[in-house]
Amino acid sequence: MMNNDNKTHSVFSASDIDQLPQRYRAEFINSLSGFKSGNLVGTQDHQGHQNLCIVSSVVHIGAHPPLLGMIMRPHTVQRDTLENIKSTGVFTLNNILPNMTQAAHQTSARYAPGISEFVEVGLTPQPSTAVSAPYVAESTIKLSLQVQDIQLLSINQTELVIGQIVEVILPDQSIDKSGYVDIEGCGSIAVSGLVSYHATQRLARYPYAKVDAPVKNVLQRSHANDT
Amino acid sequence: MMNNDNKTHSVFSASDIDQLPQRYRAEFINSLSGFKSGNLVGTQDHQGHQNLCIVSSVVHIGAHPPLLGMIMRPHTVQRDTLENIKSTGVFTLNNILPNMTQAAHQTSARYAPGISEFVEVGLTPQPSTAVSAPYVAESTIKLSLQVQDIQLLSINQTELVIGQIVEVILPDQSIDKSGYVDIEGCGSIAVSGLVSYHATQRLARYPYAKVDAPVKNVLQRSHANDT
Repeated sequence: MMNNDNKTHSVFSASDIDQLPQRYRAEFINSLSGFKSGNLVGTQDHQGHQNLCIVSSVVHIGAHPPLLGMIMRPHTVQRDTLENIKSTGVFTLNNILPNMTQAAHQTSARYAPGISEFVEVGLTPQPSTAVSAPYVAESTIKLSLQVQDIQLLSINQTELVIGQIVEVILPDQSIDKSGYVDIEGCGSIAVSGLVSYHATQRLARYPYAKVDAPVKNVLQRSHANDT
Repeated sequence: MMNNDNKTHSVFSASDIDQLPQRYRAEFINSLSGFKSGNLVGTQDHQGHQNLCIVSSVVHIGAHPPLLGMIMRPHTVQRDTLENIKSTGVFTLNNILPNMTQAAHQTSARYAPGISEFVEVGLTPQPSTAVSAPYVAESTIKLSLQVQDIQLLSINQTELVIGQIVEVILPDQSIDKSGYVDIEGCGSIAVSGLVSYHATQRLARYPYAKVDAPVKNVLQRSHANDT
Protein backbone atom coordinates (compact mmCIF):
# COMPACT_ATOMS: atom_id res chain seq x y z
CA MET A 1 0.00 0.00 0.00
CA MET A 2 1.40 3.37 -0.92
CA ASN A 3 1.45 6.11 1.57
CA ASN A 4 0.99 9.66 0.44
CA ASP A 5 4.16 11.28 1.71
CA ASN A 6 5.19 12.23 -1.79
CA LYS A 7 1.98 14.17 -2.48
CA THR A 8 1.20 17.71 -1.49
CA HIS A 9 -1.09 18.16 1.47
CA SER A 10 -2.76 21.03 3.25
CA VAL A 11 -2.71 21.20 7.04
CA PHE A 12 -5.26 23.13 9.11
CA SER A 13 -4.59 23.77 12.79
CA ALA A 14 -7.31 24.44 15.38
CA SER A 15 -6.56 28.14 15.01
CA ASP A 16 -6.78 27.96 11.20
CA ILE A 17 -10.21 26.32 11.48
CA ASP A 18 -11.39 28.89 13.99
CA GLN A 19 -10.51 31.72 11.63
CA LEU A 20 -12.38 30.37 8.60
CA PRO A 21 -15.46 32.34 7.43
CA GLN A 22 -18.61 30.88 9.00
CA ARG A 23 -20.23 29.36 5.90
CA TYR A 24 -16.94 28.06 4.55
CA ARG A 25 -16.21 26.41 7.91
CA ALA A 26 -19.70 24.87 8.05
CA GLU A 27 -19.26 23.30 4.61
CA PHE A 28 -15.67 22.24 5.41
CA ILE A 29 -16.41 20.57 8.75
CA ASN A 30 -19.58 18.93 7.44
CA SER A 31 -17.42 17.24 4.79
CA LEU A 32 -14.87 15.74 7.15
CA SER A 33 -16.86 13.02 8.91
CA GLY A 34 -17.14 11.06 5.66
CA PHE A 35 -20.23 9.90 3.80
CA LYS A 36 -23.52 10.35 5.61
CA SER A 37 -26.91 8.72 5.53
CA GLY A 38 -29.64 10.62 3.71
CA ASN A 39 -33.13 10.38 5.19
CA LEU A 40 -36.39 12.28 5.13
CA VAL A 41 -38.00 12.71 8.55
CA GLY A 42 -41.81 12.62 8.43
CA THR A 43 -43.79 14.15 11.31
CA GLN A 44 -47.13 15.77 12.01
CA ASP A 45 -48.56 17.92 14.79
CA HIS A 46 -51.68 17.16 16.81
CA GLN A 47 -53.81 19.05 14.26
CA GLY A 48 -52.53 16.78 11.50
CA HIS A 49 -50.26 19.34 9.80
CA GLN A 50 -47.49 17.34 8.17
CA ASN A 51 -43.82 18.20 8.02
CA LEU A 52 -40.93 16.73 6.02
CA CYS A 53 -37.25 17.45 6.64
CA ILE A 54 -34.03 16.05 5.20
CA VAL A 55 -31.41 14.90 7.70
CA SER A 56 -27.92 13.50 7.22
CA SER A 57 -27.22 12.81 10.90
CA VAL A 58 -28.95 9.46 11.46
CA VAL A 59 -26.62 7.01 13.19
CA HIS A 60 -26.95 3.43 14.41
CA ILE A 61 -27.22 3.23 18.22
CA GLY A 62 -28.04 -0.41 18.78
CA ALA A 63 -29.83 -3.46 17.43
CA HIS A 64 -31.52 -4.88 20.53
CA PRO A 65 -33.61 -2.88 21.14
CA PRO A 66 -33.42 -1.49 17.58
CA LEU A 67 -32.36 2.14 18.09
CA LEU A 68 -31.36 4.95 15.74
CA GLY A 69 -30.07 8.36 16.80
CA MET A 70 -30.37 11.68 15.00
CA ILE A 71 -28.62 14.99 15.81
CA MET A 72 -31.11 17.88 15.58
CA ARG A 73 -30.54 21.66 15.70
CA PRO A 74 -33.39 23.38 17.58
CA HIS A 75 -32.87 26.85 16.08
CA THR A 76 -32.77 25.94 12.38
CA VAL A 77 -35.24 24.76 9.75
CA GLN A 78 -35.39 21.56 11.80
CA ARG A 79 -37.33 23.39 14.53
CA ASP A 80 -40.83 22.36 13.38
CA THR A 81 -39.77 18.75 12.97
CA LEU A 82 -38.19 18.67 16.43
CA GLU A 83 -41.29 20.24 18.00
CA ASN A 84 -43.52 17.64 16.35
CA ILE A 85 -41.23 14.85 17.54
CA LYS A 86 -41.32 16.14 21.12
CA SER A 87 -45.06 16.68 21.01
CA THR A 88 -46.12 13.37 19.46
CA GLY A 89 -43.19 11.14 20.43
CA VAL A 90 -42.98 9.56 16.97
CA PHE A 91 -41.49 10.09 13.52
CA THR A 92 -40.72 8.24 10.32
CA LEU A 93 -37.44 7.87 8.41
CA ASN A 94 -37.56 7.37 4.66
CA ASN A 95 -34.65 6.71 2.30
CA ILE A 96 -33.82 9.03 -0.60
CA LEU A 97 -33.56 7.70 -4.18
CA PRO A 98 -31.57 9.33 -7.00
CA ASN A 99 -34.71 10.80 -8.61
CA MET A 100 -35.74 12.32 -5.24
CA THR A 101 -32.56 14.24 -4.39
CA GLN A 102 -33.81 17.59 -5.69
CA ALA A 103 -37.13 17.34 -3.83
CA ALA A 104 -35.41 16.03 -0.69
CA HIS A 105 -32.90 18.89 -0.77
CA GLN A 106 -35.69 21.45 -1.20
CA THR A 107 -37.22 20.35 2.14
CA SER A 108 -34.28 22.19 3.77
CA ALA A 109 -35.71 25.57 2.72
CA ARG A 110 -37.26 27.66 5.50
CA TYR A 111 -40.95 27.07 4.86
CA ALA A 112 -43.29 28.74 7.35
CA PRO A 113 -44.79 26.61 10.13
CA GLY A 114 -48.00 24.97 8.92
CA ILE A 115 -46.75 24.69 5.33
CA SER A 116 -46.39 21.05 4.26
CA GLU A 117 -43.07 20.34 2.60
CA PHE A 118 -44.75 17.31 1.01
CA VAL A 119 -46.93 19.65 -1.04
CA GLU A 120 -44.18 22.19 -1.71
CA VAL A 121 -41.59 19.72 -3.00
CA GLY A 122 -43.97 17.22 -4.63
CA LEU A 123 -43.54 14.12 -2.50
CA THR A 124 -46.48 11.98 -1.40
CA PRO A 125 -47.43 11.38 2.25
CA GLN A 126 -48.46 7.82 3.06
CA PRO A 127 -49.99 6.96 6.44
CA SER A 128 -48.08 4.68 8.77
CA THR A 129 -50.27 2.18 10.57
CA ALA A 130 -47.69 2.03 13.38
CA VAL A 131 -47.31 5.72 14.34
CA SER A 132 -49.06 9.07 13.80
CA ALA A 133 -46.53 10.34 11.28
CA PRO A 134 -46.43 10.15 7.48
CA TYR A 135 -44.14 8.00 5.37
CA VAL A 136 -42.85 9.18 2.01
CA ALA A 137 -44.63 7.02 -0.57
CA GLU A 138 -41.79 7.34 -3.10
CA SER A 139 -39.18 5.92 -0.67
CA THR A 140 -38.35 2.22 -0.82
CA ILE A 141 -37.26 1.85 2.83
CA LYS A 142 -39.68 3.27 5.42
CA LEU A 143 -39.19 3.16 9.18
CA SER A 144 -41.58 4.13 11.99
CA LEU A 145 -39.91 5.15 15.24
CA GLN A 146 -41.01 5.90 18.79
CA VAL A 147 -38.87 8.35 20.74
CA GLN A 148 -37.09 6.68 23.67
CA ASP A 149 -34.87 9.52 24.79
CA ILE A 150 -33.75 13.02 23.81
CA GLN A 151 -30.32 13.98 25.15
CA LEU A 152 -29.12 17.55 25.12
CA LEU A 153 -25.51 17.84 23.94
CA SER A 154 -24.65 20.75 26.18
CA ILE A 155 -21.41 21.49 24.34
CA ASN A 156 -23.30 23.11 21.45
CA GLN A 157 -26.99 22.88 22.40
CA THR A 158 -27.84 20.28 19.77
CA GLU A 159 -30.14 17.41 20.67
CA LEU A 160 -29.67 13.69 20.15
CA VAL A 161 -33.08 12.15 19.42
CA ILE A 162 -33.04 8.39 20.06
CA GLY A 163 -35.90 6.44 18.49
CA GLN A 164 -36.85 2.79 18.58
CA ILE A 165 -37.80 1.22 15.25
CA VAL A 166 -41.34 -0.15 15.52
CA GLU A 167 -42.08 -0.79 11.84
CA VAL A 168 -39.93 -1.50 8.78
CA ILE A 169 -41.27 -1.54 5.23
CA LEU A 170 -38.88 -2.52 2.45
CA PRO A 171 -38.87 -4.35 -0.87
CA ASP A 172 -39.19 -8.11 -0.92
CA GLN A 173 -35.90 -9.83 -1.74
CA SER A 174 -33.83 -6.89 -0.46
CA ILE A 175 -32.75 -8.87 2.64
CA ASP A 176 -30.19 -11.64 2.32
CA LYS A 177 -29.87 -14.70 4.53
CA SER A 178 -27.57 -12.89 6.96
CA GLY A 179 -30.11 -10.14 7.60
CA TYR A 180 -28.21 -7.60 5.49
CA VAL A 181 -30.42 -5.21 3.56
CA ASP A 182 -29.09 -4.33 0.10
CA ILE A 183 -29.64 -0.59 0.51
CA GLU A 184 -27.66 0.05 -2.66
CA GLY A 185 -30.09 -2.17 -4.56
CA CYS A 186 -32.96 -0.35 -2.84
CA GLY A 187 -31.62 2.89 -4.38
CA SER A 188 -30.51 4.69 -1.21
CA ILE A 189 -28.16 7.59 -1.83
CA ALA A 190 -25.33 8.88 0.40
CA VAL A 191 -24.68 12.50 1.36
CA SER A 192 -21.44 14.45 1.71
CA GLY A 193 -21.00 17.94 3.08
CA LEU A 194 -24.17 19.97 3.18
CA VAL A 195 -25.41 19.72 -0.39
CA SER A 196 -23.85 16.81 -2.29
CA TYR A 197 -25.63 13.54 -3.15
CA HIS A 198 -23.99 10.30 -4.25
CA ALA A 199 -24.92 6.93 -5.71
CA THR A 200 -22.85 3.98 -4.56
CA GLN A 201 -21.21 0.92 -6.03
CA ARG A 202 -20.35 -2.02 -3.82
CA LEU A 203 -16.63 -2.76 -3.60
CA ALA A 204 -16.60 -5.69 -1.19
CA ARG A 205 -18.39 -7.61 1.50
CA TYR A 206 -16.38 -9.48 4.09
CA PRO A 207 -17.23 -12.06 6.72
CA TYR A 208 -16.86 -11.13 10.39
CA ALA A 209 -13.16 -10.54 10.98
CA LYS A 210 -11.26 -13.09 13.05
CA VAL A 211 -7.73 -12.84 14.38
CA ASP A 212 -6.47 -16.02 12.73
CA ALA A 213 -8.50 -15.92 9.52
CA PRO A 214 -7.54 -13.42 6.87
CA VAL A 215 -10.64 -11.78 5.45
CA LYS A 216 -12.00 -12.89 2.12
CA ASN A 217 -14.05 -10.82 -0.26
CA VAL A 218 -17.44 -12.50 -0.37
CA LEU A 219 -19.02 -10.11 -2.80
CA GLN A 220 -19.69 -12.76 -5.40
CA ARG A 221 -21.31 -15.34 -3.20
CA SER A 222 -23.43 -13.43 -0.76
CA HIS A 223 -25.15 -10.55 -2.47
CA ALA A 224 -28.85 -10.21 -1.98
CA ASN A 225 -29.92 -12.15 -5.09
CA ASP A 226 -28.28 -15.31 -3.79
CA THR A 227 -30.73 -15.86 -0.98
CA MET B 1 -42.46 10.41 -9.25
CA MET B 2 -43.77 6.90 -9.02
CA ASN B 3 -44.76 5.54 -5.74
CA ASN B 4 -44.22 1.90 -4.98
CA ASP B 5 -47.73 0.75 -4.19
CA ASN B 6 -47.70 -1.68 -7.07
CA LYS B 7 -44.56 -3.47 -5.87
CA THR B 8 -44.30 -6.18 -3.27
CA HIS B 9 -43.04 -5.15 0.13
CA SER B 10 -42.17 -6.84 3.38
CA VAL B 11 -43.38 -5.35 6.66
CA PHE B 12 -41.71 -5.99 10.02
CA SER B 13 -43.49 -5.01 13.23
CA ALA B 14 -41.74 -4.29 16.54
CA SER B 15 -42.61 -7.83 17.60
CA ASP B 16 -41.24 -9.31 14.35
CA ILE B 17 -37.94 -7.47 14.90
CA ASP B 18 -37.75 -8.62 18.50
CA GLN B 19 -38.08 -12.25 17.47
CA LEU B 20 -35.29 -12.22 14.86
CA PRO B 21 -32.16 -14.27 15.64
CA GLN B 22 -29.52 -12.05 17.29
CA ARG B 23 -26.93 -11.92 14.49
CA TYR B 24 -29.57 -11.56 11.79
CA ARG B 25 -31.16 -8.69 13.72
CA ALA B 26 -27.79 -6.99 14.20
CA GLU B 27 -27.06 -7.10 10.47
CA PHE B 28 -30.63 -6.07 9.61
CA ILE B 29 -30.83 -3.06 11.95
CA ASN B 30 -27.29 -1.94 11.07
CA SER B 31 -28.44 -1.72 7.44
CA LEU B 32 -31.48 0.47 8.04
CA SER B 33 -29.92 3.82 8.94
CA GLY B 34 -28.54 4.19 5.41
CA PHE B 35 -24.96 4.64 4.26
CA LYS B 36 -22.41 5.27 6.99
CA SER B 37 -19.04 6.93 7.23
CA GLY B 38 -16.02 4.62 7.33
CA ASN B 39 -13.15 5.73 9.52
CA LEU B 40 -10.15 4.23 11.28
CA VAL B 41 -9.67 5.43 14.85
CA GLY B 42 -6.02 5.72 15.86
CA THR B 43 -5.11 5.75 19.57
CA GLN B 44 -2.25 4.83 21.87
CA ASP B 45 -1.89 4.21 25.57
CA HIS B 46 0.53 5.97 27.92
CA GLN B 47 3.18 3.31 27.20
CA GLY B 48 2.96 4.08 23.49
CA HIS B 49 1.13 0.88 22.48
CA GLN B 50 -0.87 1.77 19.39
CA ASN B 51 -4.38 0.69 18.52
CA LEU B 52 -6.41 0.93 15.33
CA CYS B 53 -10.15 0.30 15.07
CA ILE B 54 -12.68 0.70 12.26
CA VAL B 55 -15.85 2.64 13.10
CA SER B 56 -18.92 3.43 11.03
CA SER B 57 -20.64 5.60 13.65
CA VAL B 58 -18.92 8.98 13.20
CA VAL B 59 -21.50 11.76 12.91
CA HIS B 60 -21.29 15.53 12.48
CA ILE B 61 -22.17 17.37 15.72
CA GLY B 62 -21.31 20.96 14.87
CA ALA B 63 -18.97 23.23 12.93
CA HIS B 64 -18.20 25.98 15.47
CA PRO B 65 -16.54 24.58 17.48
CA PRO B 66 -15.74 21.77 15.00
CA LEU B 67 -17.17 18.66 16.68
CA LEU B 68 -17.60 15.05 15.61
CA GLY B 69 -19.41 12.36 17.58
CA MET B 70 -18.81 8.62 17.59
CA ILE B 71 -20.94 5.87 19.19
CA MET B 72 -18.71 3.36 21.00
CA ARG B 73 -19.55 -0.01 22.56
CA PRO B 74 -17.53 -0.58 25.76
CA HIS B 75 -17.83 -4.37 25.83
CA THR B 76 -16.73 -5.15 22.28
CA VAL B 77 -13.51 -5.06 20.26
CA GLN B 78 -13.76 -1.28 20.66
CA ARG B 79 -12.86 -1.60 24.37
CA ASP B 80 -9.12 -0.95 23.99
CA THR B 81 -9.75 2.05 21.76
CA LEU B 82 -12.28 3.52 24.19
CA GLU B 83 -9.92 3.00 27.13
CA ASN B 84 -7.11 4.78 25.27
CA ILE B 85 -9.45 7.65 24.39
CA LYS B 86 -10.54 8.03 28.01
CA SER B 87 -6.98 7.76 29.28
CA THR B 88 -5.29 10.16 26.84
CA GLY B 89 -8.21 12.37 25.81
CA VAL B 90 -7.25 12.26 22.14
CA PHE B 91 -7.66 10.19 18.99
CA THR B 92 -7.31 10.42 15.24
CA LEU B 93 -9.82 9.68 12.48
CA ASN B 94 -8.55 8.51 9.10
CA ASN B 95 -10.57 7.88 5.95
CA ILE B 96 -10.64 4.47 4.23
CA LEU B 97 -9.73 4.10 0.54
CA PRO B 98 -10.87 1.28 -1.76
CA ASN B 99 -7.51 -0.52 -1.53
CA MET B 100 -7.65 -0.35 2.28
CA THR B 101 -11.07 -1.93 2.89
CA GLN B 102 -9.73 -5.41 3.62
CA ALA B 103 -7.11 -4.14 6.08
CA ALA B 104 -9.61 -1.74 7.66
CA HIS B 105 -12.16 -4.53 8.09
CA GLN B 106 -9.56 -6.81 9.66
CA THR B 107 -9.04 -4.26 12.49
CA SER B 108 -12.45 -5.42 13.78
CA ALA B 109 -11.00 -8.80 14.79
CA ARG B 110 -10.50 -9.36 18.53
CA TYR B 111 -6.77 -8.86 18.84
CA ALA B 112 -5.40 -9.11 22.38
CA PRO B 113 -4.66 -5.88 24.26
CA GLY B 114 -1.14 -4.72 23.49
CA ILE B 115 -1.23 -6.11 19.95
CA SER B 116 -0.99 -3.32 17.35
CA GLU B 117 -3.59 -3.64 14.63
CA PHE B 118 -1.31 -1.49 12.46
CA VAL B 119 1.21 -4.33 12.39
CA GLU B 120 -1.37 -7.10 12.10
CA VAL B 121 -3.29 -5.64 9.15
CA GLY B 122 -0.37 -3.92 7.39
CA LEU B 123 -1.18 -0.24 7.75
CA THR B 124 1.42 2.37 8.62
CA PRO B 125 1.28 4.55 11.75
CA GLN B 126 2.29 8.19 11.20
CA PRO B 127 2.78 10.53 14.16
CA SER B 128 0.42 13.45 14.60
CA THR B 129 2.15 16.64 15.69
CA ALA B 130 -1.15 17.79 17.24
CA VAL B 131 -2.06 14.88 19.54
CA SER B 132 -0.48 11.75 21.05
CA ALA B 133 -2.20 9.34 18.70
CA PRO B 134 -1.16 7.87 15.37
CA TYR B 135 -2.55 8.72 11.95
CA VAL B 136 -2.85 6.10 9.22
CA ALA B 137 -0.23 7.06 6.63
CA GLU B 138 -2.19 5.47 3.77
CA SER B 139 -5.30 7.60 4.43
CA THR B 140 -5.79 10.82 2.44
CA ILE B 141 -7.90 12.65 5.07
CA LYS B 142 -6.48 12.67 8.60
CA LEU B 143 -8.05 14.36 11.61
CA SER B 144 -6.69 14.88 15.13
CA LEU B 145 -9.33 15.25 17.83
CA GLN B 146 -9.41 16.21 21.50
CA VAL B 147 -12.21 14.70 23.58
CA GLN B 148 -14.66 17.34 24.81
CA ASP B 149 -17.31 15.12 26.33
CA ILE B 150 -18.33 11.48 26.67
CA GLN B 151 -22.06 10.96 27.21
CA LEU B 152 -23.46 7.65 28.36
CA LEU B 153 -26.55 6.63 26.40
CA SER B 154 -28.24 4.91 29.29
CA ILE B 155 -30.83 3.22 27.09
CA ASN B 156 -28.28 0.65 25.90
CA GLN B 157 -25.03 1.52 27.72
CA THR B 158 -23.25 2.79 24.62
CA GLU B 159 -21.12 5.92 24.83
CA LEU B 160 -21.15 8.99 22.62
CA VAL B 161 -17.60 10.30 22.36
CA ILE B 162 -17.55 13.95 21.26
CA GLY B 163 -14.22 15.23 19.96
CA GLN B 164 -13.10 18.62 18.72
CA ILE B 165 -11.07 18.65 15.50
CA VAL B 166 -7.68 20.24 16.21
CA GLU B 167 -5.83 19.28 13.03
CA VAL B 168 -6.91 18.43 9.48
CA ILE B 169 -4.56 17.03 6.84
CA LEU B 170 -5.92 16.54 3.33
CA PRO B 171 -4.80 16.73 -0.29
CA ASP B 172 -4.23 20.12 -1.86
CA GLN B 173 -6.98 21.08 -4.29
CA SER B 174 -9.54 18.86 -2.56
CA ILE B 175 -11.38 21.89 -1.10
CA ASP B 176 -13.51 24.06 -3.33
CA LYS B 177 -14.26 27.74 -2.88
CA SER B 178 -17.33 27.00 -0.72
CA GLY B 179 -15.28 24.98 1.78
CA TYR B 180 -16.63 21.66 0.51
CA VAL B 181 -14.13 18.82 0.58
CA ASP B 182 -14.41 16.44 -2.37
CA ILE B 183 -14.27 13.32 -0.24
CA GLU B 184 -15.24 11.21 -3.26
CA GLY B 185 -12.21 12.58 -5.11
CA CYS B 186 -10.13 11.86 -1.99
CA GLY B 187 -11.16 8.21 -2.30
CA SER B 188 -13.30 7.88 0.84
CA ILE B 189 -15.56 4.83 0.87
CA ALA B 190 -19.01 4.45 2.46
CA VAL B 191 -20.18 1.56 4.65
CA SER B 192 -23.50 -0.27 4.82
CA GLY B 193 -24.58 -2.83 7.36
CA LEU B 194 -21.72 -4.40 9.28
CA VAL B 195 -19.45 -5.63 6.51
CA SER B 196 -20.18 -3.95 3.17
CA TYR B 197 -17.98 -1.26 1.56
CA HIS B 198 -18.98 1.06 -1.28
CA ALA B 199 -17.42 3.52 -3.69
CA THR B 200 -19.53 6.53 -4.61
CA GLN B 201 -20.42 8.53 -7.70
CA ARG B 202 -21.71 12.07 -7.32
CA LEU B 203 -25.26 12.57 -8.59
CA ALA B 204 -25.81 16.24 -7.82
CA ARG B 205 -24.77 19.26 -5.82
CA TYR B 206 -27.34 21.91 -5.03
CA PRO B 207 -27.14 25.45 -3.68
CA TYR B 208 -28.65 26.17 -0.26
CA ALA B 209 -32.40 25.63 -0.63
CA LYS B 210 -34.65 28.70 -0.55
CA VAL B 211 -38.42 28.78 -0.36
CA ASP B 212 -38.89 30.83 -3.52
CA ALA B 213 -36.01 29.50 -5.59
CA PRO B 214 -36.30 26.05 -7.09
CA VAL B 215 -33.07 24.15 -6.63
CA LYS B 216 -30.67 23.80 -9.51
CA ASN B 217 -28.14 21.07 -10.05
CA VAL B 218 -24.77 22.80 -9.85
CA LEU B 219 -22.68 19.70 -10.38
CA GLN B 220 -21.12 21.00 -13.56
CA ARG B 221 -20.04 24.39 -12.35
CA SER B 222 -18.90 23.91 -8.80
CA HIS B 223 -16.95 20.70 -8.47
CA ALA B 224 -13.60 20.88 -6.77
CA ASN B 225 -11.52 21.30 -9.92
CA ASP B 226 -13.17 24.61 -10.69
CA THR B 227 -11.63 26.45 -7.77
